[in-house]
Amino acid sequence: MTRPDFLSQRGDNVDRVPASDIERRIAAFQRWLGDTALDGAFLLQNVDCYYFSATLQRGVLFIPVQGAPLFMVGKSLDRAKAESPLKTLVPLLRHDDLLSHLADYGHTRLSRIGLELDVLPAARYLWFKEKFPDADIVDVSPGIRQLRMVKSDYEIRQLRRSAAVMDKGYAEIRSLLREGMTELAVDAMLAGIARQEGHMGLIRMRGWNQEMPTSHVLAGPDSAIVSCCETPVCGPGPSPAMPQGAGFSPIIKNQPIYIDFGVAVNGYHGDQTRVLVMGKLDPVLERAHDCALSILQHLEAVMRPGMACSAIFDAAQAIAARNGLGDHFMGHGDGQVHFLGHGIGLEIDELPVMAPRFAVPLQEGMVFALEPKFTFPGLGTVGIEDDYRVTATGVERLTLTEQNVLEVEIR
Amino acid sequence: MTRPDFLSQRGDNVDRVPASDIERRIAAFQRWLGDTALDGAFLLQNVDCYYFSATLQRGVLFIPVQGAPLFMVGKSLDRAKAESPLKTLVPLLRHDDLLSHLADYGHTRLSRIGLELDVLPAARYLWFKEKFPDADIVDVSPGIRQLRMVKSDYEIRQLRRSAAVMDKGYAEIRSLLREGMTELAVDAMLAGIARQEGHMGLIRMRGWNQEMPTSHVLAGPDSAIVSCCETPVCGPGPSPAMPQGAGFSPIIKNQPIYIDFGVAVNGYHGDQTRVLVMGKLDPVLERAHDCALSILQHLEAVMRPGMACSAIFDAAQAIAARNGLGDHFMGHGDGQVHFLGHGIGLEIDELPVMAPRFAVPLQEGMVFALEPKFTFPGLGTVGIEDDYRVTATGVERLTLTEQNVLEVEIR
Repeated sequence: MTRPDFLSQRGDNVDRVPASDIERRIAAFQRWLGDTALDGAFLLQNVDCYYFSATLQRGVLFIPVQGAPLFMVGKSLDRAKAESPLKTLVPLLRHDDLLSHLADYGHTRLSRIGLELDVLPAARYLWFKEKFPDADIVDVSPGIRQLRMVKSDYEIRQLRRSAAVMDKGYAEIRSLLREGMTELAVDAMLAGIARQEGHMGLIRMRGWNQEMPTSHVLAGPDSAIVSCCETPVCGPGPSPAMPQGAGFSPIIKNQPIYIDFGVAVNGYHGDQTRVLVMGKLDPVLERAHDCALSILQHLEAVMRPGMACSAIFDAAQAIAARNGLGDHFMGHGDGQVHFLGHGIGLEIDELPVMAPRFAVPLQEGMVFALEPKFTFPGLGTVGIEDDYRVTATGVERLTLTEQNVLEVEIR
Repeated sequence: MTRPDFLSQRGDNVDRVPASDIERRIAAFQRWLGDTALDGAFLLQNVDCYYFSATLQRGVLFIPVQGAPLFMVGKSLDRAKAESPLKTLVPLLRHDDLLSHLADYGHTRLSRIGLELDVLPAARYLWFKEKFPDADIVDVSPGIRQLRMVKSDYEIRQLRRSAAVMDKGYAEIRSLLREGMTELAVDAMLAGIARQEGHMGLIRMRGWNQEMPTSHVLAGPDSAIVSCCETPVCGPGPSPAMPQGAGFSPIIKNQPIYIDFGVAVNGYHGDQTRVLVMGKLDPVLERAHDCALSILQHLEAVMRPGMACSAIFDAAQAIAARNGLGDHFMGHGDGQVHFLGHGIGLEIDELPVMAPRFAVPLQEGMVFALEPKFTFPGLGTVGIEDDYRVTATGVERLTLTEQNVLEVEIR
């Protein structure tokens, strides 16, 4: 009896992070550490560790400003060694082993160290504070998020896989929808289609306390319900304990069937919204959906490297206002949010953000979702969410599904 | 056009937290705050806030050692007001509004304050540190977790609902299984069955960096793969970016089909494992499964209020050792873990823990999962996971499904 090989079992489904990507990421982060006058950073969050190591096994990754990273792995060291191109992986059985490993590898003079202060729990921060009483502790998350904002060709390829699964999901769900099905039943089918294709079965968010099921499937007025999410649309959810996404309302004809669908194949999240209808939409909603479409068409024509993210938001808002839809743009009333889009990647809430104060210019390799939406209390929400990558001269739409309201046969 | 009512839409599906439960929880926590000499605690984690407020809307809940709690709500205040029996809910639009609200409600002398240091991100901790420079900050998570460890009748009723959904899942999946289906396909069906019944669509874990899809469906040797989870079984996952749970391996006859299934209806997690087989199990595995069954039968007979959680682990380990299965008990090699069970509730990793050093005695109202499992590299894992509540005189099994290996027709 030998240990099964977890690498071979997944056959062709895995497209591993190239070692050259890992090298480039570490080199770029080390430059950032140098610019920030840090001696090194301890990364503990699983996604950040994966980004720099190509494995999501549990551990602490120390990246010094110069020299080789040291990955101290709790579980499983064997799997981490098999998956990661990093050279120095050592076991981390107790927290305090971290200190002896640092000494063994010559990392003895750490006067300014980095931690992921936006996500690291206070108790772990206080542990580092106690063990490094004389060191300055600096938040390295801005550096990591900025780096992760620009995607490599490898990463774009993964995002295309998620886009293909989302497209398959919308195609299949159109033939499965029946009047009277609950939102939860539709959500279940859609999540199932994605999962079979390798979707992780969950959505990763960096924002603390944030969570999201695979999709938000909302029938008619449910898509105008305001709740806890930092999104224009949230929905009822099945109960106050899960106050977002699908609930028990049935699909009804001539009402919008709003589907915001997140899929992560091999770690990379696509994020797409389509409105479906069984029959015919209310003219108010139809007109608003056309406005969302014209916003995207306008932006597709003008976005290019150098354009400020805030200008993208402003342009969208101006079109909405010109169409008399300002009060419905990106939610309504106290449900209104002030962004048009957000970066996607290993987490679904990455940088950049298309928001009023986010002046960062577009840069080749950025990938983000744009989601012009219009909410009408009592009627629902319409709009589109598509994913884009910035090319050398403009943008390319990664999303494959047609952008109009998707008609569904009445059954 | 009026705002839709998110309360009526879910009809009979919601069983709201009784106001009397909320009152009792707050009174108990205030006693704990008094015993710990704290002036009050700021709760920010969504599940902790829900536990004390009956709403999962986003905000900061201040519970003073005496007097009424103050819930400062970011989004959505309207929904929070409709859902929560708490009397004092105020808007929290900017972080700094927190300070003026405290002043308005007379909470001006806070020299010792509590925060959830195990989950609160360092950056938020540092915000409180800056705003309350003279205050001692104390971790209140132990107090909250201890309180949440013992469930009310209302909570047990929710856990029964999750148990019923899990039972339905196993019953239906047995008729849907076909040879050659991938683990992911089976996982998708099972998650879909649960979701239709109101499962949240995600699993909540308190442990930082912890995550879990709805189920771990693992075929044959895949259930012996060691990976990052703090569980005896983890599996391959679809890729290194999601190194747990179902992968692309097919279901094969005469091999264990291992299904660890988590379901949360109305917020409360059930956690159950069954082994299915299409055909006949290897005798080694059959014998080990019988041993798991005898462990549970023994424990069901002896568990009662007053028994130490560590004694439960010890008893199980002794039975395993007596059967010559010590090396396979709760994982194998570096995948072995040192606990037999864990509390379940609003999170799937609650207290108590049935582990060597956890000497806390059983108490009426505790609810936990026990999961004696045996891992054989190259063959897989067998065992059972069931949920129990502690009664006045013993325990009651909440899980409904029969405990033996579930036979599935070869198709």
